[in-house]
Amino acid sequence: MREADDFKLLDNVAIVLVEPKYPENIGAAARSAKNMGVNRLIVVGQQAPDKEKMLKMATHHAAHLIEEMGFFANLQEALAPFTFVVGTTARQGRHRRNINTPRRMVDKVVPLLATNQVAILFGPEDRGLTNDDLKFCNMTSTVPTADFSSLNLAQAVAIHCYELYYHLFAGRSTGVGPKLAESREIEGMYTHLEEMLRKIDFMKSRDDYWMQSIRSFFGRLGLQAREVKMIRGFCRQFMWYEDQRKVDK
Amino acid sequence: MREADDFKLLDNVAIVLVEPKYPENIGAAARSAKNMGVNRLIVVGQQAPDKEKMLKMATHHAAHLIEEMGFFANLQEALAPFTFVVGTTARQGRHRRNINTPRRMVDKVVPLLATNQVAILFGPEDRGLTNDDLKFCNMTSTVPTADFSSLNLAQAVAIHCYELYYHLFAGRSTGVGPKLAESREIEGMYTHLEEMLRKIDFMKSRDDYWMQSIRSFFGRLGLQAREVKMIRGFCRQFMWYEDQRKVDK
Repeated sequence: MREADDFKLLDNVAIVLVEPKYPENIGAAARSAKNMGVNRLIVVGQQAPDKEKMLKMATHHAAHLIEEMGFFANLQEALAPFTFVVGTTARQGRHRRNINTPRRMVDKVVPLLATNQVAILFGPEDRGLTNDDLKFCNMTSTVPTADFSSLNLAQAVAIHCYELYYHLFAGRSTGVGPKLAESREIEGMYTHLEEMLRKIDFMKSRDDYWMQSIRSFFGRLGLQAREVKMIRGFCRQFMWYEDQRKVDK
Repeated sequence: MREADDFKLLDNVAIVLVEPKYPENIGAAARSAKNMGVNRLIVVGQQAPDKEKMLKMATHHAAHLIEEMGFFANLQEALAPFTFVVGTTARQGRHRRNINTPRRMVDKVVPLLATNQVAILFGPEDRGLTNDDLKFCNMTSTVPTADFSSLNLAQAVAIHCYELYYHLFAGRSTGVGPKLAESREIEGMYTHLEEMLRKIDFMKSRDDYWMQSIRSFFGRLGLQAREVKMIRGFCRQFMWYEDQRKVDK
């Protein structure tokens, strides 16, 4: 029953569309995801998209993704239950060499699926994900394109889901990856770390720079729940130690 | 000038849409092809499709594919100059095991590109290529999908062109990995960390346990030189801060 199990793995993947402009694109993205066995769709936006327009492009086949679609006003809230977050970005001229293609992304993500909830984020059609959105991401993924042209939203979703499905379908041995920490635990950890770093005046004028470096550092790895606990334990101990000293004084 | 030559190879590929029903899909397919460096589009049909509707979906970026689009009433005539023809089909339940995925197709096609004209055929949205159409084909290609569902036409074009482009470019450019920290830098960092953790009484009886956890945590990642610098900078700052406090006292 390997294939049935693989389909179950795909239940741990959600497509998250951040502020999509056109409900038709949400529908087309739903259809693409469904084609590749991905059945969870989340939209982040200010007002609920037109359902009829979404359903038309989703076709009957993917209507249930629209019916059961999660809708949030806020990305952080939408990501709360996820333990690994991928941010998709358009190809940039500069950082060409270090891009993760969807294929590389999938190599990383598939082993995590047995024990993790994975979100793949897509930004608005015109401008893509912001740096603020990307802060939540453990890794980025970029579909390689000719001359830096940008893909239609549903195509980008299709290619990512295709790679995911292909990897599973081709039946490579996946192995079971570790259970990663949830987004909310990690955000709590960053708050803790920032508090501590401020305490020792490590961060002064260049706060954002340091927090960004720290986020990209931890994000690169994908922290495990027990590692987040360890780091937060260390921060708590540090703050406790500092308070003790005040009392001593 | 390897890359320029590879782009020339893509000039030998044409996307052939057989009796597409919706001009919007032709436009979206043109955009997908263009995104992946494929610039030749041919439509086979009984009457010329609505140009305005095609252009709208093609976007400005791919307008020239629509402007220069070949249009034929008859598939055989359209295929006349091609030496290798790929027919795309939806996944069928039965012949599952023998399907060629787009990736396998591309492995076969790319070596031919230097000396051949290659056409990739896509059938109408509702019924796909007929057996008659497939007679012209040297091979078939099927995008693997969950539960035999059929892809939107433009998505099918996108995935085939993506595989082609990926094979030529992204697959080969391996890029240069980051410079990792040297062992001596990392050992220095562990010494620093241990000193700090002892200072705040984080490690007491279970020293080895903690240092082992920390080592396995950082070891898993493979730290970059600049990250080791950042961590040591933090440790130094912490010790400095502590010393200051002693002086204050």
